Amino acid sequence: MGDQIRVGIMGYGNLGKGVELALRQNPDMKLVGVFSRRDPAAITLATPGVPCYSAQEALAMQQDIDVMILCGGSATDLAVQGPMYAAAFHTVDSFDTHAKIPEYFAAMDEAAQKSGHLSIISVGWDPGLFSLNRLYGDAVLPNGQTYTFWGKGVSQGHSDAIRRVPGVKNAIQYTVPVEDAVHRVRNGEDPVLTTRQKHTRECFVVAEEGADRAQIEADIKNMPNYFADYDTTVTFITEEEMKRDHSAMPHGGFVIRSGKTGDGEKTSQIIEYSLRLASNPEFTSSVLVAYARAIVRMAKMGATGACTVMDVPPAYLSAKDGAQLRRELL
Amino acid sequence: MGDQIRVGIMGYGNLGKGVELALRQNPDMKLVGVFSRRDPAAITLATPGVPCYSAQEALAMQQDIDVMILCGGSATDLAVQGPMYAAAFHTVDSFDTHAKIPEYFAAMDEAAQKSGHLSIISVGWDPGLFSLNRLYGDAVLPNGQTYTFWGKGVSQGHSDAIRRVPGVKNAIQYTVPVEDAVHRVRNGEDPVLTTRQKHTRECFVVAEEGADRAQIEADIKNMPNYFADYDTTVTFITEEEMKRDHSAMPHGGFVIRSGKTGDGEKTSQIIEYSLRLASNPEFTSSVLVAYARAIVRMAKMGATGACTVMDVPPAYLSAKDGAQLRRELL
Repeated sequence: MGDQIRVGIMGYGNLGKGVELALRQNPDMKLVGVFSRRDPAAITLATPGVPCYSAQEALAMQQDIDVMILCGGSATDLAVQGPMYAAAFHTVDSFDTHAKIPEYFAAMDEAAQKSGHLSIISVGWDPGLFSLNRLYGDAVLPNGQTYTFWGKGVSQGHSDAIRRVPGVKNAIQYTVPVEDAVHRVRNGEDPVLTTRQKHTRECFVVAEEGADRAQIEADIKNMPNYFADYDTTVTFITEEEMKRDHSAMPHGGFVIRSGKTGDGEKTSQIIEYSLRLASNPEFTSSVLVAYARAIVRMAKMGATGACTVMDVPPAYLSAKDGAQLRRELL
Repeated sequence: MGDQIRVGIMGYGNLGKGVELALRQNPDMKLVGVFSRRDPAAITLATPGVPCYSAQEALAMQQDIDVMILCGGSATDLAVQGPMYAAAFHTVDSFDTHAKIPEYFAAMDEAAQKSGHLSIISVGWDPGLFSLNRLYGDAVLPNGQTYTFWGKGVSQGHSDAIRRVPGVKNAIQYTVPVEDAVHRVRNGEDPVLTTRQKHTRECFVVAEEGADRAQIEADIKNMPNYFADYDTTVTFITEEEMKRDHSAMPHGGFVIRSGKTGDGEKTSQIIEYSLRLASNPEFTSSVLVAYARAIVRMAKMGATGACTVMDVPPAYLSAKDGAQLRRELL
């Protein structure tokens, strides 16, 4: 017990719930408490005996928590929460707005350096495990091309965008990789692919009664950034069908590195990493928990500031020691 | 130039030649020389202007070489060469006799600690990149099963074993994963698989004139350890067919982690890492070169002793710096 890593969860949405469940699979870790901006009295945790606190109480609990897993979203929560908690805890988060990572990294690095803590940002599968595979592929096969495909899976951002269209009551959007493009990449053809050639977007929409369905479809398909650059299909369904057929949160995708080696660089080598996830948030949570273990170890060795999955020695993720890892997994 | 990593290659077989070619793709690295137990005058390197030395000359060149890549085989070379060169250089090797890794690690660790050098052992794809994926899968999905399949690809050890059968002039052996087993694993069925259920062995044999082919086939199929536990096919071919159809050294395989997450641990998550290699030695060489870069960096930071791919922060493999990696690959 005394040696268990003491974990706090900040935010109790899908991700926070997933972290709570993932911690049960890791007996070297212990959930100290869940922190929420909602009224703690109104929240029932899945784990009996674990307290739920108001988010404001966290800062007074620095001595009780070895690592705080920040389960807020990138869009609004983490930009503020991240640096605030990095000033008080070692932290793990899943910041996933790719374009803003350098800026977020700098803010987290400053806060964590100043407080003498260690923060790992952008943990999950993309960014996260996919990033690692882009890196390994790039380093091992420098003469090559990297391709990332996502799906089939739900994009929360695109689903939200559809829900803002007038006449839409509910909606879900699946990102789907184009089979032919994937096939050509796996074949080592190194194709140049446009956005449209890589993914299609499948939208399932519950329309409000009397809404103009043709107009809704046109509004979605022409939406800039989100859909205009893609081949998009819109299917109208009932609220019952939505509940019955679209409640799971599957996702996945693959990173393929296609490279050439040897004399004349003509020998084709293909590395592929793929995920087929029945639950995107539960998988992301499992990755967060493994990196929470790693970050506590690195912090104990004196590391401070911000880092990413690229900076973490793989062995630190495991509860097993070096000798066992070499014996069993090397 | 002054900042280039200065690399020595010990051994000039398929692996050493692959390392020589891989170095050309990495402008931050420079080949200082190739070392061989054969007469250097009889060896022509692929790279004009690079000298070939006798292996005995290596120890006098400690000041000229930042890292020595040991390209000997595990069966006989490395057990002796490894500790000998770890006493004088930072080293990288591809020791791949899984059962003897703990013993080899201990010997290398002792030699390298004593001399203040850093040695990374068992680099390549299995052990190597496959090991990393077994580790990541094990850490991220602790409630799960890991499956490793090899092939379709040439097993040098099994090919050699066939060549020792009386009446065999030449032979090559392909390890082939059983499709149905792979399918069940990908499906998340978590099957318990025997050796026979995972791989078949395809042998192509050139018989000596007048040899008893039925006897050769029986000798191969009943060979303990190598073939008796497998479904094995033996096909007799001519020397011409051997040259024409079996000169490439393709290989590959996949590591699949099938895990369950969530409440009641019922949500299926599948991670798959796969390689399709047109040249096994050239790919292994490319991995060795990336880890040579990492090992020089870790040594500069004061690391000594033996380590494995599990101990190396992924970012160290890349010629790109942290900011670039976060911007481009995270």
